[in-house]
Amino acid sequence: MTRYFFTLLFTVITGAVAAQTNIIGFTSENTKKQLELEKSFESKLNPKNLDEWMQKMSAQPHWVGTEFGRKNAEWIQKQFKSWGYDAKIETYHVLFPYPKIRVVEMTAPTTYTAKLTAVPVDGDEFTAQGDALLPSYNAFSTDGDVEAELVFVNYGIPADYEELDKLGISVEGKIVIAKYAGSWRGIKPKLAAEHGAIGCLIYSDPKDDGYVRGDVYPKGAFKNKTGVQRGSVMDMPTYPGDVLTPGYGATKDAKRLNREDAPTITKIPVLPISNEDAQPLLQALDGQVVPNSWKGGLPITYHIGPGPAKVHLKLEFDWQLKPAHNVIATMKGTDFPDQWVMRGNHHDAWVHGANDPISGMVALMEEARAVGELAKKGHKPKRTLIYCAWDAEEPGLIGSTEWVEDHKAELQQKVVAYINTDGNGRGFLGAGGSHSLQAMVSEVAGTVIDPQKGVSVKERKSALNRVNGGEKDFGLYALGSGSDYTPFIQHAGIAALNLGFGGENAGGEYHTIYDTYPHYKRFKDPEFAYGVALANTAGRISLRLANADVLPFEYEQWHQTVSTYLQEVINTSETMRREVEKHNKMVDENIYELAADPRKPFKKPVKEEEIPYLNFAPLQNAMAAMETSIAAFSKIDISKLSAAKRDDLNNKLMLAEHVLTSEEGLPRRGWYKHQIYAPGFYTGYGVKTLPGVREAIEQKNWTEAQEQINKLADTFNAFNTYIQKMSPLN
Amino acid sequence: MTRYFFTLLFTVITGAVAAQTNIIGFTSENTKKQLELEKSFESKLNPKNLDEWMQKMSAQPHWVGTEFGRKNAEWIQKQFKSWGYDAKIETYHVLFPYPKIRVVEMTAPTTYTAKLTAVPVDGDEFTAQGDALLPSYNAFSTDGDVEAELVFVNYGIPADYEELDKLGISVEGKIVIAKYAGSWRGIKPKLAAEHGAIGCLIYSDPKDDGYVRGDVYPKGAFKNKTGVQRGSVMDMPTYPGDVLTPGYGATKDAKRLNREDAPTITKIPVLPISNEDAQPLLQALDGQVVPNSWKGGLPITYHIGPGPAKVHLKLEFDWQLKPAHNVIATMKGTDFPDQWVMRGNHHDAWVHGANDPISGMVALMEEARAVGELAKKGHKPKRTLIYCAWDAEEPGLIGSTEWVEDHKAELQQKVVAYINTDGNGRGFLGAGGSHSLQAMVSEVAGTVIDPQKGVSVKERKSALNRVNGGEKDFGLYALGSGSDYTPFIQHAGIAALNLGFGGENAGGEYHTIYDTYPHYKRFKDPEFAYGVALANTAGRISLRLANADVLPFEYEQWHQTVSTYLQEVINTSETMRREVEKHNKMVDENIYELAADPRKPFKKPVKEEEIPYLNFAPLQNAMAAMETSIAAFSKIDISKLSAAKRDDLNNKLMLAEHVLTSEEGLPRRGWYKHQIYAPGFYTGYGVKTLPGVREAIEQKNWTEAQEQINKLADTFNAFNTYIQKMSPLN
Repeated sequence: MTRYFFTLLFTVITGAVAAQTNIIGFTSENTKKQLELEKSFESKLNPKNLDEWMQKMSAQPHWVGTEFGRKNAEWIQKQFKSWGYDAKIETYHVLFPYPKIRVVEMTAPTTYTAKLTAVPVDGDEFTAQGDALLPSYNAFSTDGDVEAELVFVNYGIPADYEELDKLGISVEGKIVIAKYAGSWRGIKPKLAAEHGAIGCLIYSDPKDDGYVRGDVYPKGAFKNKTGVQRGSVMDMPTYPGDVLTPGYGATKDAKRLNREDAPTITKIPVLPISNEDAQPLLQALDGQVVPNSWKGGLPITYHIGPGPAKVHLKLEFDWQLKPAHNVIATMKGTDFPDQWVMRGNHHDAWVHGANDPISGMVALMEEARAVGELAKKGHKPKRTLIYCAWDAEEPGLIGSTEWVEDHKAELQQKVVAYINTDGNGRGFLGAGGSHSLQAMVSEVAGTVIDPQKGVSVKERKSALNRVNGGEKDFGLYALGSGSDYTPFIQHAGIAALNLGFGGENAGGEYHTIYDTYPHYKRFKDPEFAYGVALANTAGRISLRLANADVLPFEYEQWHQTVSTYLQEVINTSETMRREVEKHNKMVDENIYELAADPRKPFKKPVKEEEIPYLNFAPLQNAMAAMETSIAAFSKIDISKLSAAKRDDLNNKLMLAEHVLTSEEGLPRRGWYKHQIYAPGFYTGYGVKTLPGVREAIEQKNWTEAQEQINKLADTFNAFNTYIQKMSPLN
Repeated sequence: MTRYFFTLLFTVITGAVAAQTNIIGFTSENTKKQLELEKSFESKLNPKNLDEWMQKMSAQPHWVGTEFGRKNAEWIQKQFKSWGYDAKIETYHVLFPYPKIRVVEMTAPTTYTAKLTAVPVDGDEFTAQGDALLPSYNAFSTDGDVEAELVFVNYGIPADYEELDKLGISVEGKIVIAKYAGSWRGIKPKLAAEHGAIGCLIYSDPKDDGYVRGDVYPKGAFKNKTGVQRGSVMDMPTYPGDVLTPGYGATKDAKRLNREDAPTITKIPVLPISNEDAQPLLQALDGQVVPNSWKGGLPITYHIGPGPAKVHLKLEFDWQLKPAHNVIATMKGTDFPDQWVMRGNHHDAWVHGANDPISGMVALMEEARAVGELAKKGHKPKRTLIYCAWDAEEPGLIGSTEWVEDHKAELQQKVVAYINTDGNGRGFLGAGGSHSLQAMVSEVAGTVIDPQKGVSVKERKSALNRVNGGEKDFGLYALGSGSDYTPFIQHAGIAALNLGFGGENAGGEYHTIYDTYPHYKRFKDPEFAYGVALANTAGRISLRLANADVLPFEYEQWHQTVSTYLQEVINTSETMRREVEKHNKMVDENIYELAADPRKPFKKPVKEEEIPYLNFAPLQNAMAAMETSIAAFSKIDISKLSAAKRDDLNNKLMLAEHVLTSEEGLPRRGWYKHQIYAPGFYTGYGVKTLPGVREAIEQKNWTEAQEQINKLADTFNAFNTYIQKMSPLN
C-alpha cells in the first residue's frame, strides 16, 4: 500500500468518525446528555471507599453458611438502602459439605502423612486465624475411603488420558494425582472416574503458580509450598447450582433429590494438596518418565507410575443445608420499569477472599453508590437497575443459579442484560459476553481512561494485543463458565457480559488462605485505581443500557464473530480428516513402530475411523441469509423512529438473545440452552462456541454432529426471521 | 489423488528403479562386484571387537599429553600395522593448559565455597579414580582472579543479551553465570567479555541434562547434581587448532605466537560448575525474575541480579606444550594411489571418554580391520585409503587441524573426501556433509540394515522424520563445527562427511567423569550393534569412494539444497525488513510503553535502522545458470566414457569442492575458506550456510552483505564454469 493511499484512507476514516459522534443507541441530543451523565457518574467514584469496604468484608473467612457471610450480606443490604435502593435479601437453602475427615497418607514404599495445612506468614495476620480458616478441600467430592497405587496423570485432561493410553498405562483401580491448571479442576476427578480410578489428588505444581513463576508469599505474590487451592468439583458442565434442586429454586420447601442421586457430586473422593505434600508421593513413583510437556517444577524426575507409591485417601463430609443469602437491590426505572438492567458480583469467599470476590464486590458497590447519588440529584435511570450480591458462588454458582431458576419466567421477560464482575486487579480490560454487545462495550472502553497510562482502556488493551503480535481490534471473548453470568446467559438466554481488569496482578493466592487484604494491597491493585476503572466501565455500560433510546445491540460484529466460530468448526473437521488419513497411512506402513525406541514401552497404534464429510451448508446458508438481514437492520436511523416504533423495537431487542437458545438444551445436559456459548463438557470453565456441533465433532459422534448442525441452522434461521421482524421498516 | 493414479505411479517408480540398478559412480559390471565386496566387508564386522577395544582404551583418563593417551596411540598404530596398514604416528607440540588453581566462592550476601568435584557412584569403579581424573575446567580460559556481583544471563547467547538490554541490565564489570547448552560453550565467555563482564561461570542446569530430563546416574543416564561438563572455550569460530600456530603445523620448531598474543584464548576467566555448586549462587541473586524461557529446573525462583550475590573466581593454569599423537594408517590404492579417501576419529578424551570418542574410534578400527582382511584376500582398494586417529580433538580440534595445516598443499591435491566419526550410540543415522555426496550417502543408507528394526537405516530415519511431522526424504545436514571434519572442509576445501547414530541414547555424561564403559553399556549401545552399523555405513561409503569408476559426486541434490539456503537468506532479510517496519511503527505510536507494566523496569525501545533492499540477483542468476550446467552434467553416461576421459573427470571431480572456497576466507576469520558452510561466529558449533552473506545480514552490516553476495556469486560462477569444464562432452 502506498503512502498516498494511506493518507487518503486516514482522511476517510477520521472524516467518518467526526461525522458520526452519536453513541450507539442514542440520538444526538441524548448522546450529549448521556455523556454528561457518565462524566458526572465517574467524578463521584472514590477509591477510598473500595479500600475501606474491602478491609471490612475480608476481615474474616466468609464461605456460605458462616456467620460472617450473613453479616456481610446484611451490611451490603444496609449500604444499598442508604444509597436509595429497594434492597432485600433472598435466601435459598443449599447443600454444602464441610470437611470432617481428611486423610492422605503414603503407605508404600515408604510412609508419609500429608500435613494438609498452609502455614501463616510474617506480615499477614489474617493467615494466622487458625481454626477459623476453612480446611482445604474440594467441595462436592463424595465421601470415600480408598487405598491404591498412585498414577501421575499430568493435568488429568482428555489429552493426558490419550497419552497414557499410547503409553499403555491404565488408571483402573488406582488413585490418580493431577496438577492443578490445564482445565477447570472438576474435570480431573470426573475424567479419572470415567477411566476407572478410585480416588484423585490435585496439587499445585510450583511451575503453575509457585516458585517457578516468581517469588512466593510473603516475599512475592506466588504460592509457597504449603498453599492449597480450595474449590468446587461439582459437575458444573452438567448443571451448576444446588446439587439437590436441578433447574428450580432451592427454596425452603422445594422438593429435593436424595444426595445419593445427585448427579453432580463426584463419583470418587478427591482432595487438593500442597506441593510440599505432593513431593514425597511423586518422588516415590517409578515406571516411565513423563513426557516433556508434563514436567512440573519440583526438583525430581517425574515418573508416571503406577506405584510403587501406594496412597490411602479418606474423606468424610458434614453434608448440611446452609442458607445462601443473595442481596438484590433495585432502583426502579422512570420510563421503562419492566426493562431490567442487572449487575452482579458474589460476596461469598473460600477464605477471606480479598481478591476473589471482594475486589469486584467493592467496585460494584461504589458504582451503585454513585448511581444512587445521581438518582438523588434527579438523574434516575430510564430503565430499572438491579444490583445483586450473590452468595454461594464458590461451591458452584449456587446463589445466582437458584435465584435465576426461581425467577426464570419473569427474568426472561424483563431483563435487558446481566453484567457480571468478580475478582479484579491491575492491568488490562478483559471483557467477555454476548457479541451483540461488543460494539457498545468497545465504545465504552474507548471512553474509560486507564489509571496508569492516561489513554483509554481500549487503547491500552489494543497496545497489548499488538505487542503480543495480534490485531488491535477490541473484542469480547466468548463466555464459558466460572462466575455468576452462567445461569443468565447459558440457562435463561439473557444477554450477558463479564468484566474485569488484570494481567499485571499475577499470584498464587487464588482460593488459599493467602488471598487477604495485605496480599491484595501489595500485589493486586494497591491504590484501587483499577477498582475504580471497573466501576467506571461497568457503570457506564449499565447506564447506557438503562438510558438508551434504542437498546445498544449491534449485529454486524455479532455476525462477523459467529462466522469465525463456524469456520473454526469446519476447519476442525477438515483437520481431523487430514490427520486421520495421515495417521492411517502411517499405521499401514508401520511407520510408528519403525520410529519407536524398542527399549521403551510401545503400544502399536491402530487405524482410526475415517472422518466423514458433514453437510455444513444449512449453517452456511443461514449465516449468508443473516448477513443480508443484519445489513438492512443496521441501516435503521433511530432518530427517525416514532416513539411507538422505538418501544416496539426495544421490546424485541431485549429478548433477542433468547432466540439463540433451544428449550431442550444441549445433548446430555439440557440445563445448558444457549446454542452459541457453553462451558465445555470436558473443559469445565473453558468455552465451546457452537457447542452442540463442536463437541459432537470433537467426540467423533457424526450422527449427532449432523443433527446439531441442522438444529443450529434452525436456530440461526429463527434468529434471521427475528431480525427481519425487528426491523421497524418491515 | 485416486487409487488408480497411485497404482499407476507405483508401477512407474518401481519400474524405473528396476531399470536403473547401478549404484552411483559404478558401471553395471562394477556395481555387482562392489556390492559383493561390501557384503563380504559387512560379514567381517564383529561387535565383540568393539566391546573389547572400548574396555581397553577407556580404562583410564587419556586427555592430550597423558601417558595413557600415548599408549592408546601406540596401541592403535600397532593394530593398524597388524591389519596390513602402513601406520605411523605424527606428533605435534601444542599448547595445553592444566588447571592448577580453581576457586569459586560466594562472598556476599552469605558465603559458599564451590566443591568443584563430582562424586563417585555405586557400580562404576571408573568414577572413583580420584586424582587421576582431570579436574573440571574449560580449556583455554585465561588465567584470572576477579571478584564482582553476579548476573544470570540464561544461555549467554546473543538473544539473551538483547533481552538483558531490553530489561535495562548491564553485565559491565560483573561476573556472569550462564547455563550450558543453547550454543557451543565457547560463545558464552566470548559474548560475556564483549559485553564487559570480567568473569564467567557455566553450569549444567537440571532442565538441560539432569533430573528434569530423566533419572540421574547411576539410576539413569542423566547428570547428577555434582556432574560437571569439561570442554574447550578456545575461540574456534576464529580458528581452531593450536592457539600459538594459526594456519600452520605446530611442529617442534614451528614459530609460535606469545601466549599473550594468542587471539583464541578467552579474554576473561571462565569455569564450569555443577548445579549443586550453582544453586546457592543463583538462590542468592535478586532483582528481576527471569523471563519464562530462561527458567531452569532448580527448585528456586530464578532472578537475574546483578547481585546481591558476589562471587570470587580465581583460575590459574599450567600452560605447557604437550605432544599430540595422530595415528595415520595408509593402505595404498592399486589403481589411483594419489587419490586419497580419508577416514578419521579422535582418540583423546576429557576423562575416560567411553562414548566420546571411543565408541566412534572402535567402529573406525573395526571397519579398518575388515578392509584390511579384504585386502589380504586380494580385494585392495583402487584408491588409497587412509585411517586417522586424532589426538587433542577435545581442547580444540588440535591434532587434526595441525596435521591438515601441515600437509595442506598435498591434501588439496590428493584427497577425494574426508569421512569423520566421533561418539556413537543407539538410534538413527545422522549424516552431515558436502551435499555433492548426498545422493551416494542416501544410496548407502538404503543398504545398511538397522539392527533393531530390520529395515534400512534410511527407512528408519525416514519413519522418524514422518512421525515428527516432516518429510521422508533423506538428507545431509550442513556441517558447522565440533569435530575433526572442520580443518578438511572449512579450511582446506575438501569434501567431507560426518556420520553417527543416536537419538535413543540420551544422557548427561558428556565430558564428565561419568562417560565410562559401564555407563555406555547400560545406556548407549549395549550390544555395539550400532557401532557395527556405523562401521558398515562408513566402510561402504569409503569403499565406494575408493573403488568408483567415476567418483560419486552428484550436483542436482547439491543445487536443490543450496537453493534452499539462498532462499532462506533472502527470506531472512525480508522478514527483518517487515519486523523493523512493524517495530518502528509501534515505537512511533508509543505501543510498547502503553503495554508495559509500570511496576516493572521498562526501557523504552528506540527505532531501528530500516533494512535496505539487497541485490540478490547475482546469486539468483548464478544459481539459474548452474541449474542448466548441472542438468547437462547429470546426463553423462559413465559407461560410455573412455578410460582417459574417466581419469580426467575423476581428477576434476575430486578437486571440485575446493572451487567453493575463497583464498581470503570469511571476513575477520580468514582461516575459514568455505563459502557454503561455516560454524557461526556467534553460535560456535551451529552451522551458518552461505556464511559470508548470512552473517553480514544478521549483523546488519549491509555494505558487507552486498560485497559478500557479489563474492559468493563469483564463487558460484566459477563453480558453474568448473562443472561445464568437467563435462567430458565439452
